[in-house]
Amino acid sequence: MATVFNNTSLVRDDSFEGSLSTKDIQIAVQEVKVQDMPNSALMHRSLREQPYNVVSGHGSYFKLQDGREILDGCGGAAVTLIGHGNAEVKAAIIEQLDKISYVFTSSLITSSAEELAKCILEIPPGGFQHGLEKAYFCGSGSEATDAAMKFCTQYFFEKGEPQRKYFVSRRQAYHGSTVGSMSVSSYLARKVPYEDIVLPNTSFVSPAYAYQYQLPTETEDEYVRRLIEELDAKFQELGPQNIISFIAEPVGGATTGCVPAPKGYFLAVRKLCDKYGILLHLDEIMCGMGRTGTYFAFEHEGITPDIVTIGKGLGGGYAPIGGILVSKKCIDIIRQGTGAINHTHTYQNHPVMCAAALAVQKIVKRDELVIRVKEMGILLHQLLVETLQNCKYVGDIRGRGFFWGVEFVADKQSKASLPPSLGFGMRVVKRAFELGLAVYPGAGTVDGVRGDNVLIAPPYTISDTDLRKIVRLLREAYDSEETKLDLSLRVTG
Amino acid sequence: MATVFNNTSLVRDDSFEGSLSTKDIQIAVQEVKVQDMPNSALMHRSLREQPYNVVSGHGSYFKLQDGREILDGCGGAAVTLIGHGNAEVKAAIIEQLDKISYVFTSSLITSSAEELAKCILEIPPGGFQHGLEKAYFCGSGSEATDAAMKFCTQYFFEKGEPQRKYFVSRRQAYHGSTVGSMSVSSYLARKVPYEDIVLPNTSFVSPAYAYQYQLPTETEDEYVRRLIEELDAKFQELGPQNIISFIAEPVGGATTGCVPAPKGYFLAVRKLCDKYGILLHLDEIMCGMGRTGTYFAFEHEGITPDIVTIGKGLGGGYAPIGGILVSKKCIDIIRQGTGAINHTHTYQNHPVMCAAALAVQKIVKRDELVIRVKEMGILLHQLLVETLQNCKYVGDIRGRGFFWGVEFVADKQSKASLPPSLGFGMRVVKRAFELGLAVYPGAGTVDGVRGDNVLIAPPYTISDTDLRKIVRLLREAYDSEETKLDLSLRVTG
Repeated sequence: MATVFNNTSLVRDDSFEGSLSTKDIQIAVQEVKVQDMPNSALMHRSLREQPYNVVSGHGSYFKLQDGREILDGCGGAAVTLIGHGNAEVKAAIIEQLDKISYVFTSSLITSSAEELAKCILEIPPGGFQHGLEKAYFCGSGSEATDAAMKFCTQYFFEKGEPQRKYFVSRRQAYHGSTVGSMSVSSYLARKVPYEDIVLPNTSFVSPAYAYQYQLPTETEDEYVRRLIEELDAKFQELGPQNIISFIAEPVGGATTGCVPAPKGYFLAVRKLCDKYGILLHLDEIMCGMGRTGTYFAFEHEGITPDIVTIGKGLGGGYAPIGGILVSKKCIDIIRQGTGAINHTHTYQNHPVMCAAALAVQKIVKRDELVIRVKEMGILLHQLLVETLQNCKYVGDIRGRGFFWGVEFVADKQSKASLPPSLGFGMRVVKRAFELGLAVYPGAGTVDGVRGDNVLIAPPYTISDTDLRKIVRLLREAYDSEETKLDLSLRVTG
Repeated sequence: MATVFNNTSLVRDDSFEGSLSTKDIQIAVQEVKVQDMPNSALMHRSLREQPYNVVSGHGSYFKLQDGREILDGCGGAAVTLIGHGNAEVKAAIIEQLDKISYVFTSSLITSSAEELAKCILEIPPGGFQHGLEKAYFCGSGSEATDAAMKFCTQYFFEKGEPQRKYFVSRRQAYHGSTVGSMSVSSYLARKVPYEDIVLPNTSFVSPAYAYQYQLPTETEDEYVRRLIEELDAKFQELGPQNIISFIAEPVGGATTGCVPAPKGYFLAVRKLCDKYGILLHLDEIMCGMGRTGTYFAFEHEGITPDIVTIGKGLGGGYAPIGGILVSKKCIDIIRQGTGAINHTHTYQNHPVMCAAALAVQKIVKRDELVIRVKEMGILLHQLLVETLQNCKYVGDIRGRGFFWGVEFVADKQSKASLPPSLGFGMRVVKRAFELGLAVYPGAGTVDGVRGDNVLIAPPYTISDTDLRKIVRLLREAYDSEETKLDLSLRVTG
């Protein structure tokens, strides 16, 4: 059993039975340089590799201490919406700092928080009636997931259905790293040592992930039907009257690498949840705020959620902020009940964070960046297909808007993954970085252990030239790693 | 059974059997004005009361939209260290915004985070050797608690003791609002509807809370011995080899209202944890960063922890930031093992938050504010005792440095609490606010249901005059509520 890094996480890889020998894997692993950690007072994700120091950032680029300029092709983890160093956001932060930086939101509030809530909840340009009434802001997507789980629990407590206690979510979904959000996630590599600190009342169903899981004999409709039947069976198993919520990302995030659901899936999910009074909690932490070409990713699915979690793009990197958006349907139950939200938080509605996020979202709306994402997303898709589709180890290119995943496979026909220990996705990402491009690595794509992808999520403000450069550099990085892999296979073959 | 607000939380009050009639309570509850909620897009803690809008803040004061100036006697929830509107912190934030606002800390870092870690971990002026080696920064104290729970779990996973799965903490302790941190907290009012979304592998022992729980027949030493025997018995019950950590606040926070432990308690706790290899996790989220007159509250106890959680004062309100500090002993195990910290977070080490916190901490250290807190804390204590001790319903005044709790009781002799439904502590806090003073309300002080306190935690930079004003206004607010309570008792008596 080998303990290896997958996307900077440790995972015990004892499940893979591939075509490469242990020796091949050893050679590959040795190539990943382990450098001595300098005397850092920070507990980095790795105690052995010192991260690169970033000294500045402007637009779609950031600069390392060694002078290199890196094109930001993924905005960290799809966080950056309007690039780095935006002067308007800076001005808004200063304006709020000149007013007040912190208030205790038990009894106090600032206009920045009120305005941010209004801004997020306004009906998007397309006129989609989302039915969401109120927003709550916390410090991250993880905190938002915990807050949503707690809100939904209180909802049923006040509705007189306190027996409801199960959360159902999907395998290959990531909803956060706090204990609550980790409990409803099934990103295996990030759960390995924590089996005993997850909630017991969670349950998982299959992801809606056609490339790997739709049968060759199935139509899209049949695949959707099968997924819904599985979900219904899970609901029956737990007792539909015992379930609090079904949690799902409208477009899969970092785990599967930007997988949109098959057509009709979310409509059927909504119908099933309604049948049993189960709340539908959509996680738009990564795919929301315009990332997929509509302001809310669920607009594309034509459904209204009961509760939505947001994060990453909300502050666009300028502020660590997340939030939950709650439907009128849910608020009404509390309104008629205690009238009190029992989940609170010291940094709830933090004035400066709200001011920063408000500035980001105002720019997104004023400059019609979501329309830009939708339109340029078509170009990005086209470029990715033209440039990468025919590559030997590229199995699938999927996504929406400015949110694309490229999945690598050992064999295009069987869609078998590459040996996890090779960390092929991570290698492509590292090579791309050497070439001056940041993209986001994904491992365990298929089932938590097998599968590699890279995730492309550029700023909404990226130029046409830089968008093309992302795809070009990604191909270059891929080619380099393909060559190395083939060489190592020949040497040991 | 009445559902009432306690410290802005809902709690079903079916346990109180006091000397007042239901009618008395009804009259009292009616006095708490319920105003119609205006059309806010924010999900406030109450759906019925609109919080006051804050427009500015300078030094120890903040200003409401209606023009009133409020003296900040509690820094929100003991968050504000250096007052509001600090120009140096603003300058530091701008400097970082001019560099870069967000980097993905899987592979990138900024100097602001590195410097903050160094600043926090340096040996305090007194020369106390804390043994802490590395810092990790997240977005809040709650996230820090979850991160610490996950870190400690990984520690034993790598140490080859994966059977350890229990967390032991204390009743009347608050460690946060995420699912993990809530699971190890026992702030009853904040857990009411969430019984099914807490971890099952948590266990609680008595708080070290002499005023209510030391027997009249007991010496301090005997009380400590009894507490340690109870802790040992709990360890034995779970099997000491199955326990991950014991979690405790060196000085109790919002729940009990600033209760320092009896002398020798933490030395004995440390010894007991060492005996069984159980990690000692000290929660300094509220009492740390100089609040109690030493930079780390545990310095006062003469012990070194294995892991420390920090928050609130870390960013002093300018940044929503929390963190964990990990001892060399713990880091060494991971260093010799996988070398990878498996808990990660999108906003880990956020550049701007770290820059803001660094500026705050540099001011605290440069201006020797911890020494100021220690010295002026003696004055604050003296003022509180002189002004409040003889009040009819004031039972206890306890704390350390700039962290004081005043506990109200119905009867000084028996120490019996006032009926929870009266919300006496909250009434004093509301009246104080009307008089221009913000202090922090605590309810359920004694056992999660009974007990009221107010918490005083002024900025470290407060003037002598304003410190005296806090105590004066608090007395004025108290007197007003004492009169009202006595009147209502006479009317219905």
